[in-house]
Amino acid sequence: MMEKVSVIKIGGNVVDNPEALAAFTKKFCNVSGNKILVHGGGVMASKMLKSMGIEPKMLNGRRITDAEALKVVTMVYAGWINKNIVADLQKNGCNAVGLSGADANSIPATLRPKEPVDYGFVGDVDTSKINVVSIQKLVASGFCPVFCSITHDGKGQLLNTNADTVASSIAIALASKFSVKLIFCFEKDGVLKDVNDDSSLIEDIDEELFENLKKEGVIDGGMLPKLENAFNAIDKGVSEVIITNALNIDNERHTSIHK
Amino acid sequence: MMEKVSVIKIGGNVVDNPEALAAFTKKFCNVSGNKILVHGGGVMASKMLKSMGIEPKMLNGRRITDAEALKVVTMVYAGWINKNIVADLQKNGCNAVGLSGADANSIPATLRPKEPVDYGFVGDVDTSKINVVSIQKLVASGFCPVFCSITHDGKGQLLNTNADTVASSIAIALASKFSVKLIFCFEKDGVLKDVNDDSSLIEDIDEELFENLKKEGVIDGGMLPKLENAFNAIDKGVSEVIITNALNIDNERHTSIHK
Repeated sequence: MMEKVSVIKIGGNVVDNPEALAAFTKKFCNVSGNKILVHGGGVMASKMLKSMGIEPKMLNGRRITDAEALKVVTMVYAGWINKNIVADLQKNGCNAVGLSGADANSIPATLRPKEPVDYGFVGDVDTSKINVVSIQKLVASGFCPVFCSITHDGKGQLLNTNADTVASSIAIALASKFSVKLIFCFEKDGVLKDVNDDSSLIEDIDEELFENLKKEGVIDGGMLPKLENAFNAIDKGVSEVIITNALNIDNERHTSIHK
Repeated sequence: MMEKVSVIKIGGNVVDNPEALAAFTKKFCNVSGNKILVHGGGVMASKMLKSMGIEPKMLNGRRITDAEALKVVTMVYAGWINKNIVADLQKNGCNAVGLSGADANSIPATLRPKEPVDYGFVGDVDTSKINVVSIQKLVASGFCPVFCSITHDGKGQLLNTNADTVASSIAIALASKFSVKLIFCFEKDGVLKDVNDDSSLIEDIDEELFENLKKEGVIDGGMLPKLENAFNAIDKGVSEVIITNALNIDNERHTSIHK
């Protein structure tokens, strides 16, 4: 039987809230077995840019990462957020090692083509290039890798990558060596039929239901790419994919993704 | 015979100059055997604070690390500088992993007492607490650890620590398991009798000569703590300590430290 690993992704809403983050890290430390954390960035990078007198550039809800923005997101994601999460995990007895995709050449990426839209220093990940051997060595040494969503092109250039994509890419790459459980955490218990009604949780979604929910407009906005990443992971060999509340990763209330 | 490891420290002058840094990383990649890089911070943290409208606080040439300054030095040292050095080393074929002292709990520190001077969130390192096992595991896995000078107190608090001290502390801690060579790199070829005359290099310094040079005023300023760290390392079992030019780490022109 394959060894198990959990890949757990937390988003900006957890990262931005010190109390939620502290509550999450305690729960995360209690997850048994091999585990990998991937974190998003939150609003701090935009705040930092504004405090430096630079207006964040967004297009269709996505950041345009020019040279100045790359500097700030690298500082905020790989520096302040990553090291604070690591220090908090260490406090709770989890032997965390904070990483970008440049570290151990773990997540090579390629600069996104400048057409049709130039998003700047944004990296697209080819899951077949992920350095499974390096990640395996770290896990086998008893370390818990904590990834921010900064990658690199192997030619010395850091790149900004979507954190959901980083998480699903790591999960897919590790599926050749491990039985992988991928958990997307956010502020709700899972995918809700009515975003304002926690009792409307959809416990199971398969591709057919996903298509119907999209048509009905039940799923839109940020949930769309998250679910696309989730289905991509299930398609490509990840054993289990769930979407759940960051503060309840240990309970049974969640949305399960099925083919 | 003990396995060898080189601990190489570069200062702000290299970090601040992209051309010098690129030239150094190429030389560093050619250093044979196990190696660990420790880097200082340079002037970018102060520039960042100023761009945010915050005046950096210094006392006797040392930074007062209040909460705002800690955030900025963590972002700049552990984020931007560390990840750019790692990406550059990876480009040149060195399997670098960038770390703070919180990662793998590698460098635990204690908050410096607030008397007689309150330097803020500054960490003092007890070399006996350095996590030699974690560093050994990384080196044995073929990784090249790249440390910034951010440490932690084990209770979730990040701390700012002098980079020369981080380098000498790692070297001393590893001396129980390795034959350690500690190299302090800066912009001169070594300790000069006349700081403006490169030909006045002092090739060997022992403790007696060090005392005399201090009395004569030949050694002062930033060179004093660097040499104190160097003598501390030689005293505590580090096999070889040299001070040399960051762009000439592979040649024979340097200052050697002796008991």
